[in-house]
Amino acid sequence: MKTQSVRGTRDFYPNDMALRNWLFERWRAASRRAGFVEVDGPVLEPLDLYIEKSGPEIAEQLYWLEDKGGRRLALRPEFTPTLARMIAARQAALPTPIRWFNISRCFRYERAQKGRLREFYQWNVDLIGLDEFYADAECISVAVDAIQDMGLTPDDVEVRISDRRLLGALVHKYVGVAEKLIPRVFAILDKRDKVATDTLAAMLNDAGLKNEERQRLERILAFENLSDFDSIGVVREPADTLKHLFDLLADYGIADWCRFDIGVVRGLAYYTGPVWEVYDRKSEFRAIFGGGRYDRLLADVGGRPMPACGFACGDAVLGLLLKARGLGPAAQRAAQYFVASAQEGKRSDVLLVVRHLRRRNRATQFDLKGGSLKRQMKKAADAGAQFVAIVTAEFAESRRVTLRDMDSGEQRDVALEELGA
Amino acid sequence: MKTQSVRGTRDFYPNDMALRNWLFERWRAASRRAGFVEVDGPVLEPLDLYIEKSGPEIAEQLYWLEDKGGRRLALRPEFTPTLARMIAARQAALPTPIRWFNISRCFRYERAQKGRLREFYQWNVDLIGLDEFYADAECISVAVDAIQDMGLTPDDVEVRISDRRLLGALVHKYVGVAEKLIPRVFAILDKRDKVATDTLAAMLNDAGLKNEERQRLERILAFENLSDFDSIGVVREPADTLKHLFDLLADYGIADWCRFDIGVVRGLAYYTGPVWEVYDRKSEFRAIFGGGRYDRLLADVGGRPMPACGFACGDAVLGLLLKARGLGPAAQRAAQYFVASAQEGKRSDVLLVVRHLRRRNRATQFDLKGGSLKRQMKKAADAGAQFVAIVTAEFAESRRVTLRDMDSGEQRDVALEELGA
Repeated sequence: MKTQSVRGTRDFYPNDMALRNWLFERWRAASRRAGFVEVDGPVLEPLDLYIEKSGPEIAEQLYWLEDKGGRRLALRPEFTPTLARMIAARQAALPTPIRWFNISRCFRYERAQKGRLREFYQWNVDLIGLDEFYADAECISVAVDAIQDMGLTPDDVEVRISDRRLLGALVHKYVGVAEKLIPRVFAILDKRDKVATDTLAAMLNDAGLKNEERQRLERILAFENLSDFDSIGVVREPADTLKHLFDLLADYGIADWCRFDIGVVRGLAYYTGPVWEVYDRKSEFRAIFGGGRYDRLLADVGGRPMPACGFACGDAVLGLLLKARGLGPAAQRAAQYFVASAQEGKRSDVLLVVRHLRRRNRATQFDLKGGSLKRQMKKAADAGAQFVAIVTAEFAESRRVTLRDMDSGEQRDVALEELGA
Repeated sequence: MKTQSVRGTRDFYPNDMALRNWLFERWRAASRRAGFVEVDGPVLEPLDLYIEKSGPEIAEQLYWLEDKGGRRLALRPEFTPTLARMIAARQAALPTPIRWFNISRCFRYERAQKGRLREFYQWNVDLIGLDEFYADAECISVAVDAIQDMGLTPDDVEVRISDRRLLGALVHKYVGVAEKLIPRVFAILDKRDKVATDTLAAMLNDAGLKNEERQRLERILAFENLSDFDSIGVVREPADTLKHLFDLLADYGIADWCRFDIGVVRGLAYYTGPVWEVYDRKSEFRAIFGGGRYDRLLADVGGRPMPACGFACGDAVLGLLLKARGLGPAAQRAAQYFVASAQEGKRSDVLLVVRHLRRRNRATQFDLKGGSLKRQMKKAADAGAQFVAIVTAEFAESRRVTLRDMDSGEQRDVALEELGA
């Protein structure tokens, strides 16, 4: 081989592709059951679209190029800015709420590692135009529906839910952190699972938090139930609205998948309300889903402000989890039927049977080289064929074939019109 | 709007996406019926992969960037080099013939115009490991199957078929062009439909063809039937093998879709045998499919030589043709069912009915805002819902809803367990 593939990208051989299609089918089915419709945008977007949302340092983390006209084009690192651009462009004409989903190939120029690829797929579900908690619950229910459809259970994964406003009120009003420091504290707290306790304390110290403030922060981060906040008057309101969301999730019948977790922050500054992540219970892997409310999204790209919520789910971490749990598609069959020619079976008769089966939408192969019956049976096995239809010299008169079940080895005589019915 | 999309790219709003999915489903179904399995590779490939196949000037026609390590990465302009790379990497382990198909997003940096986009999709079908004519016929039959499944007929499109070896023998042995000039003459002939007769003559003249040679070339280009070549002894062999291919296409039952056309050349040097293109009969559009045999492909990327044939079909020209013929998917429904709440119908009851329908895999929406019944009926119409299930205060006891058929306006009382069955 002269040329190697690019690091952090993947080749999808038939079995890899079967898993990808299996995953996409479940993403699509869960989205559609909840009345979401599919959309997509380009891979190439103006680099500015991402700089507007995330600042100029984003250019370091994505692939971009300059075209002959000096325009800077990026390979999309995520779908949300495209979504916002598309909605803003037709905002007046679109009936609300907008229920869109998308499955897109995205690109990030970062160190390739387990569960982090430079080329990956992302499922996005967005519900735009509603500030009701129902919209957040609806999105979470779509995520759970897909997870369940993949064969995962509440023993495997959980949805960890918090609310930016609750944590904001706690950090500001209860702990006493100045409002302008909140984004910095959020960014530090988002790293809580990834760094040691000492490191975290040092980071908070550097951010200007006094010893007493850090202790108060630590105390609230240990709270495991929403009712633990009942005694803290200044967060009554955000705590109550979050309780309301949990009541809705119970009405959706998915309470056992969901857990309150004050530690869910979501790094990005753009979340404005409920935030949630899906993790495997054992925390062996990174987050599988990340979602929340981002009511400033439309205004940020220059559109009319519109409340919005949604989530994204990548294929890499989910693929690792499915593999670890032994879940995924059954072994692939390239062909369901293989049409073989016995001694003196004519090629045109073989083709007639092939055409008949394909018209009946049966995946059908035959030996294009026309070798011995033994060779043909080998090809049928290679293709994973379930049935072999053997055409003999008598076919021209009888219009019947010998049908062999490759699993049981049983053979029987079948009339053409019954074949593949 | 602050940021515009990139020229030559497309936004897929729900209706555009519905057409894309409709097209992809037909591409997939035709491939699978013939026992082909899906594969894919990365969008980012080493630029060298394309330079090896097409020469350094290809870098002008594609998007590429240099990464932080100085590696030149290209956005794939086509799938075939990736296919060759993937096969070469596992050549010993793959049972032959290899029947692979692929639907990939590809990128070309060329002037955006009608039917030519900078970002487009391409369907590839490849049959590797067989030099029999059956393989070529099999590929053509898959193309015709997909076209037919889209509602197009032999009155709309035709497969124009020739053979590089036939044209090569004619140009060299009959016309008298030197062997080393053949690739240049082929490249000129490939432009025949795009330039004026005078221009073509001038180009052939520049290439060194004498007046007499040009006349002889013109004479054979006017031949419309394979039998016209019977009197030219030097091309007996390639003409006979091409006749054999047409006999096979008749056995496939697709003779009326296919026509011999000596003018089909295919620009790329890499074709080695039969070549074919699908055009609309009126020649209003560019070629819809291009295919042929390319037996040097594997060796070109450093693999063990293997015979190969296949085709590619883009979505842009095909989309224009389908639109012109009024073909494509039916109007999209975001939801099949809409669950509405009549006066005093409880939200938790609405949600119970919603969950029931979604479990039965029915695309189901409800009014997340919980407005008046009138408003809910408006939302149901926006979603294109076929049925509205109305939940009243009695539901808690009766477990029955009022089901309204939105097309006929008829209403009837339905028990929950029958709903969506």
